[in-house]
Amino acid sequence: MTLVIDCHGHFTTAPPALEAWRRRQIAAIGGDGAMPRARELAIPDDELRQAVETNQLAQMRARGHDLTLFSPRASFMAHHIGDFEVSAAWAAINNELVYRVSQLFPDHFVPVAMLPQSPGVDPASCVPELERCMRDYGAVGINLNPDPSGGHWREPPLTDRWWYPIYEKMVEWDIPAMIHVSTSCNPCFHTTGAHYLNADTTAFMQLLQGDLFRDFPTLRFIIPHGGGAAPYHWGRFRGLAQELKKPLLADHLLSNVFFDTCVYHQPGIDLLATVVPVRNVLFASEMIGAVRGIDPQTGHHYDDTRRYLDACPRLTDADRAAIYEHNARRVFPRLHARLAAREGTMP
Amino acid sequence: MTLVIDCHGHFTTAPPALEAWRRRQIAAIGGDGAMPRARELAIPDDELRQAVETNQLAQMRARGHDLTLFSPRASFMAHHIGDFEVSAAWAAINNELVYRVSQLFPDHFVPVAMLPQSPGVDPASCVPELERCMRDYGAVGINLNPDPSGGHWREPPLTDRWWYPIYEKMVEWDIPAMIHVSTSCNPCFHTTGAHYLNADTTAFMQLLQGDLFRDFPTLRFIIPHGGGAAPYHWGRFRGLAQELKKPLLADHLLSNVFFDTCVYHQPGIDLLATVVPVRNVLFASEMIGAVRGIDPQTGHHYDDTRRYLDACPRLTDADRAAIYEHNARRVFPRLHARLAAREGTMP
Repeated sequence: MTLVIDCHGHFTTAPPALEAWRRRQIAAIGGDGAMPRARELAIPDDELRQAVETNQLAQMRARGHDLTLFSPRASFMAHHIGDFEVSAAWAAINNELVYRVSQLFPDHFVPVAMLPQSPGVDPASCVPELERCMRDYGAVGINLNPDPSGGHWREPPLTDRWWYPIYEKMVEWDIPAMIHVSTSCNPCFHTTGAHYLNADTTAFMQLLQGDLFRDFPTLRFIIPHGGGAAPYHWGRFRGLAQELKKPLLADHLLSNVFFDTCVYHQPGIDLLATVVPVRNVLFASEMIGAVRGIDPQTGHHYDDTRRYLDACPRLTDADRAAIYEHNARRVFPRLHARLAAREGTMP
Repeated sequence: MTLVIDCHGHFTTAPPALEAWRRRQIAAIGGDGAMPRARELAIPDDELRQAVETNQLAQMRARGHDLTLFSPRASFMAHHIGDFEVSAAWAAINNELVYRVSQLFPDHFVPVAMLPQSPGVDPASCVPELERCMRDYGAVGINLNPDPSGGHWREPPLTDRWWYPIYEKMVEWDIPAMIHVSTSCNPCFHTTGAHYLNADTTAFMQLLQGDLFRDFPTLRFIIPHGGGAAPYHWGRFRGLAQELKKPLLADHLLSNVFFDTCVYHQPGIDLLATVVPVRNVLFASEMIGAVRGIDPQTGHHYDDTRRYLDACPRLTDADRAAIYEHNARRVFPRLHARLAAREGTMP
């Protein structure tokens, strides 16, 4: 029996007290009231349980997903707000909430951590929270925001040494990062309709231009939302790699770069399965996320990506098993260890 | 006999004197030497002829393209350099060169104008050059840069009234605009591998979010590079339109928004032809452009997009005639008029 592991889920349905706390924090930055303390946020287990049970978990059951790699809400990370201390307090709260969900539903949710990034602040500052989430919360991966400015892109490219303190820890803990931006505060970029996809494309091209995996041969990134524009323009990227005198994409990037399946229609998934090797594709839906409606053309949720994979004519059953389970276990070894322990096998 | 009209070609092979002039202009901005005058650039017809004949025209003949809508080199527009006067001098020179090419090879090249945009400067300032190109050069369209900052995205979205002076002239002259950025000076964004595609996705989402075509029902835009990420994520965009309470994409955008075929591999073109109605697809290659190499998988140029269209199993001969010729004549009425005059028919 193949497990169906969704490698990309956010806690988008947290109880409203979370947002209320954040509003107080933001007000305090502006000098309006005292900075709230973490312990002033009290969300009882019952509320947490209900927030997940009636939303993500209900949908997972309906769609036949077994497990979600669950991280704090991406658009709420909003690393552009305040300074490092603000991000640190906010990340700690969100990571703890996600951990508690994973404790309430240990068979269904496994934590992925957000980082307390802040514009212009040395990423080394994120290491303590990263390690806390690995050590105390059993997190199996992180989300890394390549643009903590929220749409102004002032940080160096991901291949720059600026980011190496994070990469060193990723290698040490043997965890991958999903490259995931947050809310856009640039009016040119709609958050989920432009900024997210642009960030995916941008990250892929940064990795293509550089030689990061020479320095970190085991570093692994997941590019969400089906890789932004990359698979649709695979020929362009193959051609650009050639112009830049890089090796073939398969050799240059595909031991280290993976794509999720958050592509919300059949032809998109078919394209992804056509151009990207199966071992580089990880099942995901980002449910409940950016696109919550029902597609009138199919009668099903746009983000019910399992249906597209099940219907994709190019994929064999073995391919689907790789996409649903085995690739995730390979890319997230800490997830594999956890599952192996549960299954009573050695990791 | 169907004409094969490439709606997206730039003069990327201009004689080196052009770049030398530009270097002097840029040096003068920095206080190094006097600002060069336009008449100091002298490129004889023979040099122009050769620059095109051995490059674009040779490839057009080899690939069976009849006609290219030809505009100044996109990456050289570099609207972020200097002020309006700098852009005005540079646009005038480039538009004249493209016009001269169209005079030397009237059966093969038709001018499309660049605009003298400059960051933060009222787009109304571009109207005189736009009208000069229409009136004196017989241009049939324009390229509009949604980000004259070159990767910092400081201008308002394309749906903002800021841009209306351009749109009013487009309607008056009945010309479309290709939305095309220029060089990225943001190190996060590789020019042709990220900035171009991001701009396409961004522009599409801006148009989706807004209601611009209520104010300008006949305004027409071409989104180049196959629409960036839009067709690959068509389900996402349909779903976002639904969340934003917009009409179906077909009703909301597809009378006004068109995609070119600059997608450099077969699966990408197949996807485009699957999700975007044929009447919204215009043939293009952007040859000679960003990706100049030969694809080792096919033995042909990556940008030889005609091969992918000819091989696309979804397209009928009538579809191909629409994509190669009829859509371009409909979207560019001034091109149609010119061709009709040449063909001895009434436009």
